[in-house]
Parts: sequence; structure tokens; C-alpha cells
Amino acid sequence: MSDPVLVEVTRGSIVESRHRGAIAVVDAGGRVRAAVGDVGQAVFPRSAVKALQALPLVESGAADRYGFGNAELALACASHSGEPRHVATATRMLTAAGRSAADLACGVSWPANREAANALARAGEMPSALHDNCSGKHSGFICLACHMGVDPSGYVKPDHPVQRTVTAALAEMTDTDLGDHNRGVDGCSIPTYAVPLDKLALAFARFVTGEGLSADRARAAARLRAACTAEPAMVAGAGRFATHALSLFGARLFVKGGAEGVYCGGFPELGLGVALKCDDGASRAAETLMAAVIAALVPMSAAERADFADWLTPPVMTRAGVRIGEVRAVAGLAESLR
Amino acid sequence: MSDPVLVEVTRGSIVESRHRGAIAVVDAGGRVRAAVGDVGQAVFPRSAVKALQALPLVESGAADRYGFGNAELALACASHSGEPRHVATATRMLTAAGRSAADLACGVSWPANREAANALARAGEMPSALHDNCSGKHSGFICLACHMGVDPSGYVKPDHPVQRTVTAALAEMTDTDLGDHNRGVDGCSIPTYAVPLDKLALAFARFVTGEGLSADRARAAARLRAACTAEPAMVAGAGRFATHALSLFGARLFVKGGAEGVYCGGFPELGLGVALKCDDGASRAAETLMAAVIAALVPMSAAERADFADWLTPPVMTRAGVRIGEVRAVAGLAESLR
Repeated sequence: MSDPVLVEVTRGSIVESRHRGAIAVVDAGGRVRAAVGDVGQAVFPRSAVKALQALPLVESGAADRYGFGNAELALACASHSGEPRHVATATRMLTAAGRSAADLACGVSWPANREAANALARAGEMPSALHDNCSGKHSGFICLACHMGVDPSGYVKPDHPVQRTVTAALAEMTDTDLGDHNRGVDGCSIPTYAVPLDKLALAFARFVTGEGLSADRARAAARLRAACTAEPAMVAGAGRFATHALSLFGARLFVKGGAEGVYCGGFPELGLGVALKCDDGASRAAETLMAAVIAALVPMSAAERADFADWLTPPVMTRAGVRIGEVRAVAGLAESLR
Repeated sequence: MSDPVLVEVTRGSIVESRHRGAIAVVDAGGRVRAAVGDVGQAVFPRSAVKALQALPLVESGAADRYGFGNAELALACASHSGEPRHVATATRMLTAAGRSAADLACGVSWPANREAANALARAGEMPSALHDNCSGKHSGFICLACHMGVDPSGYVKPDHPVQRTVTAALAEMTDTDLGDHNRGVDGCSIPTYAVPLDKLALAFARFVTGEGLSADRARAAARLRAACTAEPAMVAGAGRFATHALSLFGARLFVKGGAEGVYCGGFPELGLGVALKCDDGASRAAETLMAAVIAALVPMSAAERADFADWLTPPVMTRAGVRIGEVRAVAGLAESLR
């Protein structure tokens, strides 16, 4: 495997670091519309498929039963920063099903948001599983279990009814056989399955267009997407790439990242899905590549382009606040994507 | 440039991410004893050369004049975690020269050490430049200026007498012409110069053996190295790789990392220096490679090997504390290094 260098990190006039990767752009009919690097490689999508994993929550009727609005559904699709609004929304989801943070199996971590972490420390408190970036997804899983009438206990295990249901949806969306042979364990203890990059892009083309999906699934996909568009701050958090892109471009796109350099998304008006992986797992490169994909494919106004500039070439700064380099996609990438 | 894959990150039975890089092992006579990847590539060593940048502090007599012991000298070579002992030692260095944190130009950052950061937040305080990982090096620069009888103001600029002196030492140690053509700005605002990897390894072979150096410089190098061996917790901090390696192997090695995937070091008994760069800038890969270099070159007891195991193959964990993968050097790397 030798994917091309797609992202450069500069310092002064010198390229200091380089990231390789692959990008698949696929339509809902499964046609590969652009391919950079090895798009047949199987990658763990990690959190990039949370929106697909949330489909059963809506399709089953659980979301309606527990009265979930946009905030709750967006949080079910989120890798959030542990801000107070995220914690409050996850709590509300669990409470609606008569459950609590004690049922969460995602593990405990400090909020990624510095201000939120400092506020906790200042109050002499420690974080709980509610602060973990996956608490919304896990709250959705617990609610799904309750709605299905099964014990949520063990809901992270591959053979639990919740994971069976979620995995079936993921297998259908990606046209990929998911099982022991391609299963790993995600950081939040649920299964993650290695899926070819072009199949992940296909899944997101379907997700954003509804093409090739049952009417129920297409409705569930549209509802989750509308929730993320309406509540972009729930999907990630203050200062984060996904939140900024969803805020800026609204219903023109859906994007969601995962750990280890994965980013997925789709463009409803173009009928396209995209999936990318940085070989080395770097988030900075994955975000810069996703920004480059958006800039190459989505028509945007001059004002939008200006507002998006810092995500296309994120600055490298001194700690005294001076810009001394940048992260940038390699020259010619846009042409390869069109 | 196409360096080989040197580090793999696994999840279950699948390799999830891959890091490429290059490693140079060179003796004090400049002979390349092992080369993996492109060892002629110029890389910004960043903080990996702090010990070389500290040579003038000792050679000039400034360290003696201000009464510096092992703790102060180790901190001058450090990328520390902002723990209370680090802050106290930097403060002591500045006070000895009649200066204060107000003179530091490194910028302000939160301590990398979570406990230290939480303690600050809990006290309702904000970090100062003393908490920045480079505050020891910068305190050394300020003391050098005071000892030279020049105004410390502007000490981070390339044409300030302090940087001229430090750059001259670095150029001599690396046998490399350093100037406008290969200069960038480091995260702490001082100049950083791109140096070929094999020349960085040469510099550290000289640093740990004293060979090819003036008597004064060899003494200064030995003193800095002894300080880092005596105070390994000053060089990085609790739970950090450099601190663990210096504690475990004592005078048998010197190691120091830099940002963007650089690690340098040397083995006095073997008469060798080493410099490595991960193309993508990942610290996890640089540390794992340095651990692999140590394991390949340094004779160690079974107890030492056991104590070092988690650095050779750092675990990938769920946030619930289960090991589900590992970071590891590729098979056969040890053979290429011997």
C-alpha cells in the first residue's frame, strides 16, 4: 500500500511533515466518481459512521417514543466536546428512557473542550461517562434497547440485540459483510468494522440522497441529517471543524469525522458521498482533506470561501500567536476530485 | 521522498494506521552505521536539540555564575510537563539572574500534565509562560544574555547575541551551515534550523562521547548529560518516555524528542548518535521508534526489558481500560539498525 502524499505541513518555506491518504467520492448508484489513493482499502470508520449507527434509533420508533428533537438526534450522531449542553442533552436522553449515566459503558474522559474541563476542575469535580465524546451515541443505544424491550446491560457487545441491529443497518448501508473477520473494538468499547473506503462513500451517498433505501430508512436518514444541520454545535462543539462546516453550509452537506484520520460525508445536491482516510491517523490532515473536498465540490460564495479559509489552510502558530506555517492539501488535489 | 513504513498501529488483528520515517545511526567520526529511509533529508529538530542549545549556558560560565545544579541544567534541556517542580526550577533560574517570568518570550500554555493543569484550574488560576514546556530553555537563554552583559530583550530573534551564540554551537556540532536558507520559527518563537538527519545523529554522537569537541565543549556536554541522568523527571515529566528511558538506562544513553515526530539521542558506551523523523510528525511513532532503537542497540537485563516493554509496544486502549491494539515497530527493523 502506498497512498500519495495529500497534505503538507509547512514551517517557513520548508515542508516539515507530510500526510498520505486516500479519498473516495462515490454516487448513490455505487459509481466511483473520484478516487485518490487506494479506495478499496478496508478502514475502521470509527466515529465517522455514528449517523449510520443512529438510523435504528429513528427507524425503530425509539426517538419518537422518547420525544427526541434535533438536539438529541444530533447528539446521537456526535463526537462532542463534553460541553455543558452536551452533558445536559445526554442526561435528558437517558432520563427519557428511565436510565442514567450509570448505564453508559463508553468509559470516562475529560471534556475535549478546555473551558469545560477547567470548569469541572475548578468545581473540584471529576468527569463522568456523560463527558465522554461518545455519550450521545451510547445514550441512543441504551434508549434503543429500552424501546426494544431488552436489558441494556452489555449493549456494547457484538451479540447484544442493539449491536446486532446497528451492525445490520451498517452492513446494508455499506453493502459490506460485517463479522468476526473485520471487527475491532472502538475506543468506546463498541464494535467497529473495517469497511472499504469506496463502500463508506457509497453509504454516505445513500444517506444524504435516500436513493436505494427503503422509505423508512430514507426518512430516518433525512431526519438525522436535518437534526445535525439544525444543531451543528451538538455534533462536535465550539471551534470544531464539523460544527463549523455544518453551520456554514447547512443542508448542502453532511460531514462527520472519526478517530485515526477518517472523515466521511455527503453532498445531497450533488448526489455524492465521500470517505477519506489518512494513513497515519492524523486528525489535522483528515480535516484539511475534508475541507479540500468541500472546496472542490461545493459551489460557495466569496463570503463563504473567506469564512472557510482557515479550515482549508489551518495556520501553524507560535505559542505567542504568530503564524509561521500552515497545513495544506497538495497542489492539484482539487482537480483530482472533480 | 518515500521513506518506508516503520510503525504500525493495530486494532484487533488489523493494522489501522501506518507511520513512515527515517533513522540515522552515526558514530562520532561521521560514519553512518545504520540508515533507514532518507537520512540525508533536512529536518527541523525542534526541541530534540535543546541539550545542544544549552551548551553555551555551561561553556560561557553562566551556569556556574548563577549556581545551577543538575535540576536547572536538566530543565534547560527539557520539554517539561509544567509540573510544580518544573515551574519552581525555572523561577529559580530566572531569579538567580535577577530576572522574572515577565522576560520569558516562549508564550503561555497549559501544563501538558493533566494533574498540574487541573490543580491550576482548581485554584482559579491561569497558566503563565513558566508552565510552557520550553520555559527552562528560555530561562537558560535569559541567564546567558545576563552573563554576556547584553539586554535579554529580543533574545528569541536570530540576530540577538544569545541566538548567534547558540546557533554557532549548533552549526559546529552538526557540521551544517545554518542561516536564512534553512531557518524556520519554532513554536516557542526561537529559530529552528533544518539539518540533515545524519548530521543530527553525528552531533549527538559527539555530544555523548566528547569526541571531536574542544575540551571545554566536551566538559559542558558531559555535565549536561550527567544533569539529565541525575534529574530525568526534569527533562520531561511524570509518565513521559524520555523521563522513563533516562531513569531506566541512566548514563547508558541520552534521549530527547522534538515536535513533529523527531527524536534524537546517543549511546556513550557504543559511541553512537541517533536521529529519527516520522514523516507525518507523530509523537507516538517517534517514541516507539526511539524505543525500538534502544532495544536494538543497548544491552539490557530481562528486568529492564520487562520495564521497557510498554514503550516498545505501547498499548491502544479503550476508555474503559481494555487493551485492544498496539503501536509497534515493523518486523525486521531491529536487524536494519544493528
